[in-house]
Amino acid sequence: MLKYEKVAKQIEQYITDNQLSQGDKLPILDELTEQFKVSKSTIIKALDILELRGMIYQVRGSGIFVRQQKRKGYINMAESRGFKESLREFDLTSKVMALKLIKPDSHLMEQLDLEEDDEVYLVKRVRYIEESPFCIEYSYYSKKHVMYLNQEIAEDSIFTYIMNDLKLNIGFSDTFFRISYLNEGEAGHLELKENDPALRVETTYYLHNGQPFNYSILLYHKDQAQFFVPGTHY
Amino acid sequence: MLKYEKVAKQIEQYITDNQLSQGDKLPILDELTEQFKVSKSTIIKALDILELRGMIYQVRGSGIFVRQQKRKGYINMAESRGFKESLREFDLTSKVMALKLIKPDSHLMEQLDLEEDDEVYLVKRVRYIEESPFCIEYSYYSKKHVMYLNQEIAEDSIFTYIMNDLKLNIGFSDTFFRISYLNEGEAGHLELKENDPALRVETTYYLHNGQPFNYSILLYHKDQAQFFVPGTHY
Repeated sequence: MLKYEKVAKQIEQYITDNQLSQGDKLPILDELTEQFKVSKSTIIKALDILELRGMIYQVRGSGIFVRQQKRKGYINMAESRGFKESLREFDLTSKVMALKLIKPDSHLMEQLDLEEDDEVYLVKRVRYIEESPFCIEYSYYSKKHVMYLNQEIAEDSIFTYIMNDLKLNIGFSDTFFRISYLNEGEAGHLELKENDPALRVETTYYLHNGQPFNYSILLYHKDQAQFFVPGTHY
Repeated sequence: MLKYEKVAKQIEQYITDNQLSQGDKLPILDELTEQFKVSKSTIIKALDILELRGMIYQVRGSGIFVRQQKRKGYINMAESRGFKESLREFDLTSKVMALKLIKPDSHLMEQLDLEEDDEVYLVKRVRYIEESPFCIEYSYYSKKHVMYLNQEIAEDSIFTYIMNDLKLNIGFSDTFFRISYLNEGEAGHLELKENDPALRVETTYYLHNGQPFNYSILLYHKDQAQFFVPGTHY
């Protein structure tokens, strides 16, 4: 992690620790520089990142303010670490329905930039929030990046395993979504009726070097899932 | 607009003009500096912005690459200028159903940071894409910021009017969404059936100084609306 990214995280922690909310003022630049013991340019870069992430806003000649219109239980869709980050106050569990190595079809080859001979881990899970069905997940991991997966890992957090054990650097993600409808099997898993609506969320995750390593389709329970997106104007 | 914001827009234009797509390499830093005739630090800042916006990715020691997993017809939800920006290739029209000054209720007072005596413009529109109903919009503009609105402006782009005529600086937005259901009247406007699902998108827009000036609720047609969110990992 670069120094300014670390400082950005520390400022974020400072906001949490001090329970600052929308409109609250942060210390001035000089005080931040002193507090975090880094150069002014590092603080400026960290603040720019936090601004673009929707955590703060800077008003020239007036100060730095907290922007935290977060609502509890909403998934931040611009967060590329999966929804566990947004829902850390909740009890999240997974039931693994399938875990196997498959050959990619042409759509998957395109999404994950694969050759015909490459292999892919397919993980199908039902995910629960506070023991209620929350979403169905079909997730495809390119084996050339995620070389090993097992049931135990899939029952826990695959992304944590990827970052902490495989030491892969997740860079960015592209998410596309729309309303879709459940088939009979999907409805059963979510304890809903066939043809009930769901939010169908399709994401490709990339490593820092731009290589895609995961493609997933999630079908969210219509009443359980709520989402948040911070927007910034340029 | 600050210099690096202008350069960011120019680089974006360069990507469009040269029809660059996902994974294509941009000129190296020195060439960009020469091409846009600005300092190296301005280019670096412009590239940082484009990276955080999901337009490019930078791989240390390897170069700057285009990240453009855009799909035509998808609304970028992290774009705080409303959906017109994402859908500029399409014919978008609006029918104004109501335009009036109202007193805010307590929810609106909270969203727009208003006092009891403040007034709010309510604009209700049905919006069409290629002449098909696309969404119903209930939009509330704080009169202390948007001092005047009329039918003609509401039939066109209110945000363009706000930026170009009122010279207000739009800063950021907070968007919350979930699946909801249409009542009879709403279904009629969207040419759907009562209780059909819709994507209910609630957004508060803020000026650069952090003051909220607009709060809106949009109900999107279940089959017409598709969305995109770029995610960045920190």
